[in-house]
Amino acid sequence: MKNVPFKGVIAYPITPFDENDKVDINLYKVLLEKLIVTEAHGVAPLGSAGVMPYLSDAEKEEITEATIKQVDGRIPVLVGVSNLTTAKTIEHAIFAEKAGAAAVMIIPMSYWKLTDEEIIQHYDAVASKISIPIMAYNNPATGGVDMSPTLLKKLLKIPNVTMIKESTGDVQRMHYLKKELGDEVSFYNGSNPLALAAFAAGATGWCTTAPNLIPKLNVDLYNAIENNDLEEAQKIFYKQVNLLKFMVNKGLPRVIKAGLEIQGKYAGYLRSPLKPLSDSETEELKMILKNIE
Amino acid sequence: MKNVPFKGVIAYPITPFDENDKVDINLYKVLLEKLIVTEAHGVAPLGSAGVMPYLSDAEKEEITEATIKQVDGRIPVLVGVSNLTTAKTIEHAIFAEKAGAAAVMIIPMSYWKLTDEEIIQHYDAVASKISIPIMAYNNPATGGVDMSPTLLKKLLKIPNVTMIKESTGDVQRMHYLKKELGDEVSFYNGSNPLALAAFAAGATGWCTTAPNLIPKLNVDLYNAIENNDLEEAQKIFYKQVNLLKFMVNKGLPRVIKAGLEIQGKYAGYLRSPLKPLSDSETEELKMILKNIE
Amino acid sequence: MKNVPFKGVIAYPITPFDENDKVDINLYKVLLEKLIVTEAHGVAPLGSAGVMPYLSDAEKEEITEATIKQVDGRIPVLVGVSNLTTAKTIEHAIFAEKAGAAAVMIIPMSYWKLTDEEIIQHYDAVASKISIPIMAYNNPATGGVDMSPTLLKKLLKIPNVTMIKESTGDVQRMHYLKKELGDEVSFYNGSNPLALAAFAAGATGWCTTAPNLIPKLNVDLYNAIENNDLEEAQKIFYKQVNLLKFMVNKGLPRVIKAGLEIQGKYAGYLRSPLKPLSDSETEELKMILKNIE
Amino acid sequence: MKNVPFKGVIAYPITPFDENDKVDINLYKVLLEKLIVTEAHGVAPLGSAGVMPYLSDAEKEEITEATIKQVDGRIPVLVGVSNLTTAKTIEHAIFAEKAGAAAVMIIPMSYWKLTDEEIIQHYDAVASKISIPIMAYNNPATGGVDMSPTLLKKLLKIPNVTMIKESTGDVQRMHYLKKELGDEVSFYNGSNPLALAAFAAGATGWCTTAPNLIPKLNVDLYNAIENNDLEEAQKIFYKQVNLLKFMVNKGLPRVIKAGLEIQGKYAGYLRSPLKPLSDSETEELKMILKNIE
Repeated sequence: MKNVPFKGVIAYPITPFDENDKVDINLYKVLLEKLIVTEAHGVAPLGSAGVMPYLSDAEKEEITEATIKQVDGRIPVLVGVSNLTTAKTIEHAIFAEKAGAAAVMIIPMSYWKLTDEEIIQHYDAVASKISIPIMAYNNPATGGVDMSPTLLKKLLKIPNVTMIKESTGDVQRMHYLKKELGDEVSFYNGSNPLALAAFAAGATGWCTTAPNLIPKLNVDLYNAIENNDLEEAQKIFYKQVNLLKFMVNKGLPRVIKAGLEIQGKYAGYLRSPLKPLSDSETEELKMILKNIE
Repeated sequence: MKNVPFKGVIAYPITPFDENDKVDINLYKVLLEKLIVTEAHGVAPLGSAGVMPYLSDAEKEEITEATIKQVDGRIPVLVGVSNLTTAKTIEHAIFAEKAGAAAVMIIPMSYWKLTDEEIIQHYDAVASKISIPIMAYNNPATGGVDMSPTLLKKLLKIPNVTMIKESTGDVQRMHYLKKELGDEVSFYNGSNPLALAAFAAGATGWCTTAPNLIPKLNVDLYNAIENNDLEEAQKIFYKQVNLLKFMVNKGLPRVIKAGLEIQGKYAGYLRSPLKPLSDSETEELKMILKNIE
Repeated sequence: MKNVPFKGVIAYPITPFDENDKVDINLYKVLLEKLIVTEAHGVAPLGSAGVMPYLSDAEKEEITEATIKQVDGRIPVLVGVSNLTTAKTIEHAIFAEKAGAAAVMIIPMSYWKLTDEEIIQHYDAVASKISIPIMAYNNPATGGVDMSPTLLKKLLKIPNVTMIKESTGDVQRMHYLKKELGDEVSFYNGSNPLALAAFAAGATGWCTTAPNLIPKLNVDLYNAIENNDLEEAQKIFYKQVNLLKFMVNKGLPRVIKAGLEIQGKYAGYLRSPLKPLSDSETEELKMILKNIE
Repeated sequence: MKNVPFKGVIAYPITPFDENDKVDINLYKVLLEKLIVTEAHGVAPLGSAGVMPYLSDAEKEEITEATIKQVDGRIPVLVGVSNLTTAKTIEHAIFAEKAGAAAVMIIPMSYWKLTDEEIIQHYDAVASKISIPIMAYNNPATGGVDMSPTLLKKLLKIPNVTMIKESTGDVQRMHYLKKELGDEVSFYNGSNPLALAAFAAGATGWCTTAPNLIPKLNVDLYNAIENNDLEEAQKIFYKQVNLLKFMVNKGLPRVIKAGLEIQGKYAGYLRSPLKPLSDSETEELKMILKNIE
């Protein structure tokens, strides 16, 4: 039986910076603690929302350690360790395992379009150096490479690749995973506007930064599905769908920062080249959040 | 309140030909009768499965009249009347209404990419000449033009445009329709592999030619949704998903003809340039149908 | 040696209608005569610009006969005979040959995506019924199917398929045709904004409706290429490129009608659903034409 | 008048590694020297061919310094300084200027899709810190963001952004640049298979790693264009087009390494996850190179 430590809502914290472009680790812990206490089923530092690719190695290690210490075993921690080179990916994966991560998430970041064989060897090389499970993450919009369902199936032959996160926004990929791989594999949805469709298709969990703003609605959606209550799930989903779409269209870290501020919380600074939402975008977000209440 | 005569499974008959490339109207009635008695909630002649664009005006009228006579009021009939020119579309829509259709379906077929304004005027011109409702049909893959959700919203301001059929395969379009238009509009799913996702998103019905081969599985899916039993719906959906995908990938009329023959039924001939499935495709279909049982 | 009756600028007349939506055949002849006398190297009725798919069979035959009579042997005539069904395509091809066409142009119009095998059989069936050459036309934007270079290569094995018209707008397709097929095949460019790039890549001719508005600039471009004068060709091309782009973006028949009217000529009516350019589009076209002078 | 230090063939060296995954700086200099002596008009270290994103800061600085020392003023040097964060891009741009670069090349690398405003501020921030010119580089396939012609036009308002490198493979973008910006701006082609089309459209130069394998053919193409001899240019282009396509399809560093080895030269190692060409790919490359001779 494959080792699958995650289910339900896996919450992604953002990485806040101070006015001097340094990671604000104290603010990070405050924001993280809120994700933990609002009943997320897991937490995932160093994801897209956490602007992982914009961080130095030292910053990534600082975030990893701070997360695991703050969580303190209450829920499992999934650490993003993707890197352009195989050597660096291994380095960060080993660090995450030692720090106490329940699993690592790896997207085959690419500058050059990698061949399937290069991707398999990349995962294989990392997998052989750690003993915790790997969540293989497919997101052509940020990672630059689109792993076909056939390739994902091959990756799952690597023993500690046990989870797939799909963010293409194509629900048919999830059908394929479910149909072809059966109960041996767990897949997770990373495309926020597909939250309902993915759970309907049988997703084990939802990787999302939305709990920074609307934790109860996110968890309630999962609970309705668990209760086999589609009508209720549909009702809860349509309450939040406009925010989920806005988050994706405007960029996760930008929207979470603005949303937290609208909710009266301090959210620090973004790292350049990322800039805050414009005034009109902020107004639109205010309306969306107001309509959710 | 808008007039919406359809819900559930709307079954699409194929148009069979004889060995001299003439419509085999007797065989058509036999195949149609099977759709009616297997509990489809509606029937839609002259759709994509019925190779409507390949038929002459006289053939279309023959099919329309034969359908309404055969159905004889047991279930509502939705007649496809799309045409490249506005004048011809009006002509066929008037014919369908007189023959007794419950509604007509119109896709803005295009050779030249039509502007939004041209599309609105096209629907408006037809709508003003008939009193039965219109289902506006969006399917860029066959019709050549992609109507944006915003355009669809505008079309719904025409009083007897009361239904939307979405076949883009993008579940987010359905979210938009449901969220923006609320209970005033009914939307129907025309993308077979999205059957479950569309019902989960709130679709009123499913336009499909699959009941020619697996009527019970199609109707059972709808019933599970009506019973708010997502687990059961998911189970039933995954039984049929491979066939639904195969139908779309290989072309509806080609697959239905081959499938009927595999099931021991006579299905007539296709009209050129359409050709029967190859031997290997037929073998693949046999396996898919066998695995469904 | 393959029979290739066309080179240079092949001019596409529009099909004008009168106020009662009937083809205005007298006006058609007037517009056609202008194309002939302004030194186009060939003329092609019933193309996209001539709204061929919007015409009845009788209208198509009327246009074909009027064209050949008016041209009266001065330049070769290429007649569009594409149709969704194979039977109708054969019927129109035979008619065109009898009427005196130098060649016919065929695009595999599709509602259902045709397989490569279906397309080959379609061309083969037509080719076997006529003795004049066929220009195979690839234009996924209007025809709905994209013929790969590999498929085009196969089509060229049919003896009287001797010419390829490429309208994908992808210059690399032309490189492939030139490189793979060498001097055995002639390819023609149907993407107006690629006129210079296509001639630079070795295109034998340019299929275009632009000579309705700017015949001298079109022919001069070809002449500069024939004179191996790239600098001059570039200068001439950049004079007309904005019009070429506008024509494609707004639709050929709509722009030609508006342009003729701006030039003080009568151009008749469009057939619905096509509508005249909006006021702002007409103003934009005026500026473009003014800047060309 | 804008400062434009480049024209003609701008050659991109690869970055070779030793068996311990360290940059092989001596081998780098050997390969670089060959580019210089074979009449390339400029040289560009730390480009895509040089796997810049896979290098550490120290490795990038080592390459920059080694290049400028080796070139020793014989031809101008264009240094790639792109980075995900604005701060790092500034750091590397300042380093390149101090080291003696003639200009820097910047692609707005993105993980999050940057807004136009974020991209403008990114370039503006870097431009204000250096006095040498910037080549703005558009390549959605590797950089992840597609800068529209309108955005490029805005970037050119920054005084020391004086050059545009276009790698979308869309020749119409080049028409726009030439037509809209006239003689004020120089654009460069970065899409190898478009080399002829781009020069025909008026490109000032060609950024390419092909001179590592076929320097004479590359330079001869430019010379034919300079001599206004399109026929000769076409002939030379078609000799090399299959290699240019293969390079793009299989990845520049992988193909250059394999090609050098086929030519009997030592080319070192690739950095993981990049792997050497497969045996069948190598055979294909051998045939392509053989057919060029």
